[in-house]
Amino acid sequence: MKAIVNVSLKQGVLDSQGKAVHHALDSLHFNGVEDVRVGKQIVLQLQESDKEKAMSEVTKMCEELLANTVIEDYEIELV
Amino acid sequence: MKAIVNVSLKQGVLDSQGKAVHHALDSLHFNGVEDVRVGKQIVLQLQESDKEKAMSEVTKMCEELLANTVIEDYEIELV
Repeated sequence: MKAIVNVSLKQGVLDSQGKAVHHALDSLHFNGVEDVRVGKQIVLQLQESDKEKAMSEVTKMCEELLANTVIEDYEIELV
Repeated sequence: MKAIVNVSLKQGVLDSQGKAVHHALDSLHFNGVEDVRVGKQIVLQLQESDKEKAMSEVTKMCEELLANTVIEDYEIELV
């Protein structure tokens, strides 16, 4: 089973990488962009085939390692 | 309109960040992980409301700035 984890900065946390990308897009004359946020996408290939167990395992991984829950949110999708 | 761009390393390109995460998960006794790949997720808030125009604009952004197409693939999703 594959797990896709999207980690993004919480609303209100300054996203300097997003700001830099926005600025670079402006420099390249892409003017129709209102906001840019940059996050991480982590794709895990798991041995577990049970959806519930996989979700609980990946949630633990996010809490302990993959996301900094003080400033980041995470979403898990199982495929 | 919102565009979600997922940028990931092409198959065969060494993903050192993924390897590091995999190793860290092993150290934390998460043993059921076969492979880890780490990519970027870029969320763009666009003024454009026409899907086709937005897709063509974001594709240009990916080719020119957001992805390094020599070693990275990108996927665009419009929401």
